[in-house]
Amino acid sequence: MVDGGIRPLEVAEVGSFDLTTDVLVVGFGAAGSCAAHAAREAGAEVLIVERASGPGGAAASSEGIVYLGGGTPVQRACGFEDSVDNMTRYLLAACGPEPDEAKVVAYAEASLGHFDWLTERGVEYDARLDVETQMAPAGTEGLVWSGGEDAWPFNEIAVPAPRGHLARTKRSTGWLLMQCLAGAALGAGAAVSTDTRVDRLVVDDGRVVGVLASRFGERLAVKARRGVVLSAGGFIWNDGMLRRHAPQLLLGTWKVGTEADDGRGIEMAQAVGARVKNMHAGEVALPVIPPRQLIEGIIVDGSGQRFINEDTYMGRVGQAALYGRDATCFLVIDEAGYTPNWMGLEASWVCETVGALEVEIGLPPGSLEATLDLYNRHAETGSDPVFYKRPGRVRPLRAPLGAFDLRRGSAPYAPFTLGGLETTVAGEVLDLAGAPIPGLFAAGRTTAGVCSFGYASGLSLGDSTLFGRFAGATAARSATVI
Amino acid sequence: MVDGGIRPLEVAEVGSFDLTTDVLVVGFGAAGSCAAHAAREAGAEVLIVERASGPGGAAASSEGIVYLGGGTPVQRACGFEDSVDNMTRYLLAACGPEPDEAKVVAYAEASLGHFDWLTERGVEYDARLDVETQMAPAGTEGLVWSGGEDAWPFNEIAVPAPRGHLARTKRSTGWLLMQCLAGAALGAGAAVSTDTRVDRLVVDDGRVVGVLASRFGERLAVKARRGVVLSAGGFIWNDGMLRRHAPQLLLGTWKVGTEADDGRGIEMAQAVGARVKNMHAGEVALPVIPPRQLIEGIIVDGSGQRFINEDTYMGRVGQAALYGRDATCFLVIDEAGYTPNWMGLEASWVCETVGALEVEIGLPPGSLEATLDLYNRHAETGSDPVFYKRPGRVRPLRAPLGAFDLRRGSAPYAPFTLGGLETTVAGEVLDLAGAPIPGLFAAGRTTAGVCSFGYASGLSLGDSTLFGRFAGATAARSATVI
Repeated sequence: MVDGGIRPLEVAEVGSFDLTTDVLVVGFGAAGSCAAHAAREAGAEVLIVERASGPGGAAASSEGIVYLGGGTPVQRACGFEDSVDNMTRYLLAACGPEPDEAKVVAYAEASLGHFDWLTERGVEYDARLDVETQMAPAGTEGLVWSGGEDAWPFNEIAVPAPRGHLARTKRSTGWLLMQCLAGAALGAGAAVSTDTRVDRLVVDDGRVVGVLASRFGERLAVKARRGVVLSAGGFIWNDGMLRRHAPQLLLGTWKVGTEADDGRGIEMAQAVGARVKNMHAGEVALPVIPPRQLIEGIIVDGSGQRFINEDTYMGRVGQAALYGRDATCFLVIDEAGYTPNWMGLEASWVCETVGALEVEIGLPPGSLEATLDLYNRHAETGSDPVFYKRPGRVRPLRAPLGAFDLRRGSAPYAPFTLGGLETTVAGEVLDLAGAPIPGLFAAGRTTAGVCSFGYASGLSLGDSTLFGRFAGATAARSATVI
Repeated sequence: MVDGGIRPLEVAEVGSFDLTTDVLVVGFGAAGSCAAHAAREAGAEVLIVERASGPGGAAASSEGIVYLGGGTPVQRACGFEDSVDNMTRYLLAACGPEPDEAKVVAYAEASLGHFDWLTERGVEYDARLDVETQMAPAGTEGLVWSGGEDAWPFNEIAVPAPRGHLARTKRSTGWLLMQCLAGAALGAGAAVSTDTRVDRLVVDDGRVVGVLASRFGERLAVKARRGVVLSAGGFIWNDGMLRRHAPQLLLGTWKVGTEADDGRGIEMAQAVGARVKNMHAGEVALPVIPPRQLIEGIIVDGSGQRFINEDTYMGRVGQAALYGRDATCFLVIDEAGYTPNWMGLEASWVCETVGALEVEIGLPPGSLEATLDLYNRHAETGSDPVFYKRPGRVRPLRAPLGAFDLRRGSAPYAPFTLGGLETTVAGEVLDLAGAPIPGLFAAGRTTAGVCSFGYASGLSLGDSTLFGRFAGATAARSATVI
């Protein structure tokens, strides 16, 4: 029904296949690497096809945080107690609304084992906590608070524990992670065809049995005896899809992903009847901190009002600003707390009085003053009963005041998409009626993962790698077609 | 690929058809009536199939407002200037983000002609304006402000003009409207099969050629020589679809629609490769007014902060409260402005001081006081530079104060879905690659209409009826299959 660009081909239309394998993995990023490895471990012949000239995907250029908990050796060495139950409570609250409970529970339960799996693949962690950042530390610290676990409301829902795990390296942590993951896939014997773009799925009597790809202009039809795993990324680089499903993300200024995140994997699956989920959702990093001392300031919107506890995960601030406030907000801080941030972002305005700052920024007259007066009144007692910033970060702010311009023209809003195919925990792609599509599996940002909307750094690499493993194993165990 | 429930049937699987027509219309609501009428006028044989025992759909139980402008006789008689350009400017601003510009332009351009079309079908309008309500007047007034046209920011974008048109009746305006529309379809010679539920589309070589339906347990296969028009409503009654696409709407307490708004029309089309759009979007009526004097109060959220100009369309207030504030807000007003509202909703709290009211409601200490102080400071001069409520409605609010509880447990949040199939202005259903699916057309809440997210009362009946006409005419003009 769908036109030439994306319509699935019946096997009869393909003629002969150029290659045959058991499990075909589309995309050699984090999810694809792990799927390929797991499929090999389960005894299947595996071919990975990748558009780029080598492995990596969005993961290779990411901060490389993997969200892991339940009491990992790194957590314990840093003095944090955690448990599967505790992690589950946090995730159910943080990944909503309407989180995929089955995935959340499976994710928390598998987390300790997944930590071991990663270290066995060569990912090393320094058992030190960096308290400043929510992303990559300046040093080689292996643990960060990456999801506002120690901030309201999560600190009241679960015992706060940091769960952002970073491989030991001073930079390019995502790249290092991908070297380990891709190395594991190749070491396990997965074959790879790079520079190979998958254009369509091939079906036979309602089952996905292969793909039609192209490589340097040459057609390449690949048969998959057991299944196809789509791990082809999200759709942040497809403006048409953003316009239809997540128009707010068009306000983003710094797309997180590669150009291959064009939604092709999602739409190819939809063309064979797959169901999608959470297509409006996106993570939106607004990387104001480190340093954390900046959260002693207040963040106000264009009405001069606060809207969130400033000590929460900056992705939550970014989402709230982008989805609800047209990517318009300002961080106001006094001299005692002021410092340029890690990106070299500095105060755009410094004024002797609140009123002057309002005028400079262009806030409604009296609005910032009212907000600050209320904030300071409670800050005198170290409390914030309006937005619940933690006591240690709450103190009265006194003029002179500076303000960072966090509007989209001045600060980066770095989004990627969270919506995609609905899959089971095992990685089966569901059709519109909720039944698995035979022969089709998926993982990573081609799917809707543990996060329905709320996010923590590391949950994308976390569910890509874990559910990538599950999807690869499930595909490998599927019945073989001749 | 999709399982038995919804997978399209190949014509060979159907065997014989029980009925044959030129244009088959699925759903006898506003869109279906108009599609059927237009298809008949274009010379096609038409059969309408409807799940219920008679016509009506969601339209029959609606307020019956149709959004029309550009200088209708009713607008002119009430003293309002309007033009196609002016209406277009309003709609482009009000229907975003990323409104469907082609549809908006077509809608505004066709509006005057559509007014005539409706009156020619027997819909009569009293040329009197009701200023109190944004919905159904208590009397038979034919015109209301139904989209915040006279409120910021729209009053600065276009010359304010009311465009909500209501048929002359004291109650059940939607029902009266549907009598006219269904009567027109029947009068034009459309045949009807009621109590008939469409289960699947039937396809032949990539073209939609009919449906498989059931009637009192009996299978009914209907062939459509020229096309099938899906006008089967939205998905507000399908909790699974809400969970996947618009989880916030699960907070709604008063679903607007009928049980037939189960998304079946949307998913049947997706099963043949159709593309969807804006699936997260929903209109959310929060019917606080009439009377309009209540907008002299302020609406605050759970943080004691205002978030919108109170004089805007109550659907905008409802959307902002449901999507961004967990359906938690309060209307605070003084004695001079107080009155129970049209639903008999009364103040839940009345206090001598602001501080006491904060305690009673459970707002953060000092938050309402700070908000009121700032509001009153500007209200002294009749202005509202924070949220731009119009001058005539801004005056200082003095204790004693009362507050209406507008949380979802106390006030109705009445949502319906705005997302659906992407269609052309002509009513063609687009596939995942953006090409029309041969033989398939759609209109009404089965489609994504003029509103991407922002809404005005009457735009749903407006685009259902207008684009219903277009879709019916396009289907009737399509090539005939044997």
